[in-house]
Amino acid sequence: MEGKDITCTAAVAWGPGQPFSIQQIRVQPPQKMEVRIKILFTSICHTDLTSWQGQNESQRVYPRIFGHEASGVIESVGEGVEDMKEGDHVLTIFNGECGECVYCKSTTTNLCEKFRVDPLQSVMRNDGRTRFLTEDGEPIYHFLNTSTFTEYTVMDSACVVKIHPQAPLKTITLLSCCLSTGFGAVINTANVQQGSTVAVFGLGAVGLAVIQGAKTRGASKIIGVDINDNKRIKGETMGMTDFINPRDLETTVHEKIREMSEGGGVDFSFECAGNLDVIREAFLSTHDGWGLTVVLGIHPTPRMLPLHPMELFDGRRITGSVFGGFKPKTQLPLLVHHCMDHQEEVKLSEFISHELPFNSIDQAFQLLIHGKSLRCLLHL
Amino acid sequence: MEGKDITCTAAVAWGPGQPFSIQQIRVQPPQKMEVRIKILFTSICHTDLTSWQGQNESQRVYPRIFGHEASGVIESVGEGVEDMKEGDHVLTIFNGECGECVYCKSTTTNLCEKFRVDPLQSVMRNDGRTRFLTEDGEPIYHFLNTSTFTEYTVMDSACVVKIHPQAPLKTITLLSCCLSTGFGAVINTANVQQGSTVAVFGLGAVGLAVIQGAKTRGASKIIGVDINDNKRIKGETMGMTDFINPRDLETTVHEKIREMSEGGGVDFSFECAGNLDVIREAFLSTHDGWGLTVVLGIHPTPRMLPLHPMELFDGRRITGSVFGGFKPKTQLPLLVHHCMDHQEEVKLSEFISHELPFNSIDQAFQLLIHGKSLRCLLHL
Repeated sequence: MEGKDITCTAAVAWGPGQPFSIQQIRVQPPQKMEVRIKILFTSICHTDLTSWQGQNESQRVYPRIFGHEASGVIESVGEGVEDMKEGDHVLTIFNGECGECVYCKSTTTNLCEKFRVDPLQSVMRNDGRTRFLTEDGEPIYHFLNTSTFTEYTVMDSACVVKIHPQAPLKTITLLSCCLSTGFGAVINTANVQQGSTVAVFGLGAVGLAVIQGAKTRGASKIIGVDINDNKRIKGETMGMTDFINPRDLETTVHEKIREMSEGGGVDFSFECAGNLDVIREAFLSTHDGWGLTVVLGIHPTPRMLPLHPMELFDGRRITGSVFGGFKPKTQLPLLVHHCMDHQEEVKLSEFISHELPFNSIDQAFQLLIHGKSLRCLLHL
Repeated sequence: MEGKDITCTAAVAWGPGQPFSIQQIRVQPPQKMEVRIKILFTSICHTDLTSWQGQNESQRVYPRIFGHEASGVIESVGEGVEDMKEGDHVLTIFNGECGECVYCKSTTTNLCEKFRVDPLQSVMRNDGRTRFLTEDGEPIYHFLNTSTFTEYTVMDSACVVKIHPQAPLKTITLLSCCLSTGFGAVINTANVQQGSTVAVFGLGAVGLAVIQGAKTRGASKIIGVDINDNKRIKGETMGMTDFINPRDLETTVHEKIREMSEGGGVDFSFECAGNLDVIREAFLSTHDGWGLTVVLGIHPTPRMLPLHPMELFDGRRITGSVFGGFKPKTQLPLLVHHCMDHQEEVKLSEFISHELPFNSIDQAFQLLIHGKSLRCLLHL
């Protein structure tokens, strides 16, 4: 079908919080430096959920195809694409890498000038148009450089990572977002060292990936924090050494964590709940003098950062982490190899709590909304 | 006078903003691990000013002896002090180093567990008493581990740094606070590298010390920002390459700085004005992806940090710096040597705009209040 429209099935969102429309769409051929991908697996992340719910008004663009954590096979490539060809196995990445800009050439950031994560992106950069059309020829908008809730998608090649053909696509799908985001926050952004102490706030898939990263780095204490007691077992499977349910405490979480870490607090804390008040607890849980809090995501909010300027002088630091600090095109293939070589250590299959056919996507969203799924993998 | 009270002259503050009382006081002998110092030079910093004005209610403790930037000679030492003896030349340091605690043993912080900067400190740690008494025997309180507006003071030895006997005490006095704070923020906290671009907000003594540090490190562009045009000449003498007076702009300062640095912003910004709104401008002046803002001080405020949590994901970072990140006892003697060996480079005498006798301290405060002095050195 190279060079021609493909008609296929997609889950189209027509308005905030509305059930997905499983419908036929037309997917146009990739243009210059774009690729068209046959999606094989996609899962659902909280970013899809809050966007689908329309929590951020400025993102309300419909009809739209959500989804960003996915794997698939290249169907065809546009003009100028030389690093991928038909049949290559790939991951879709919401935070791309052009390789040419001042950011990509810097070792200090993974935010590409052109292809960095952009929640407002809804059309292709080449021409400001969409590559998805309804059967009537009306545009269907893109999402987060990716749009993976469809049998076929078109993406900028800068946002697509070719991976080893023997990599098990089903589990490696998790490296498209949650595993890389959590694991990378530990090994890249925080650079946790052996013997460090760590607290992880929010034990969803990203939080569990943080635990996996901390265990890989040899952290001596990994404290998990979640208001859901059911998270304890999975956390322990991943390497968590201690668990706190804030609802069981008579003190604040940070006081409890300081008590559990010889009075001083942990060396590193990771905020994976996306909640501003949790950010403050995470910040105060670290040791003064050198503690570092890494924030991995945040729900839309009009509120400012709940820190007092004087608190900067206690030596605690705070920083954000996007896609775990990985430069996707150059560094992610190495993480894929690491996961292939250390399957006992990086327990990817433990992240997949449910598997459903693609047309059960509404059911998959309900599982996530009700906190019943970790990652629900949709098979296309 | 070893082991006996010394009667001498001090400038005692009896209430917020009241003229100093130049009066006779009794200074008791140093106790265990304390030293008594004959102050030779002291200068006035904004921290003295805001404390004297009583801006922070919790610090309103009177009668009190302010002052923290000073040099002098050891008069006598208390039990257990082995690193200093009568006649040694010393600097007084508000942020001490015990050398024994977990913080002092860590390479990541200069905040000692026991002797770190503490604006509420008003008595000696040994016994919760003061070493200063009125002629009637009533206590006069201490300030910031130091209290230097007096001919003799008693301090914890952890807060006193012995320096080379040939070091020129008068100018080296500046290393007791402002020079170390600014210079160290550049070379320790930010670790500015050759070719970096830098913006400095607030060109008082600390801001000028930042400029000196940036010049020493080979920064390619050093932009000074101040609402007082008179600061331009001194800034240029120190190594500033560009000057911005925000009052001359039709845009915001950060927009101007981004324009001046090829659109992206500077690599490092330093907030030396102590103003929350300036913190935000300093933050936004840095390059996304890797910019670092270092905050060197802040006036008392009930307001929180004016940053939105989403802004953490642009790759800009912010951190506080206390005493330039120097561990005073172990690292400051090296800075003294550096200044002695590079007098053409580190222009200490340029920082001293006025010199007055000690009993003109009220006049010295007025000079600072009206922005007329950089550092006014009082001779005792």
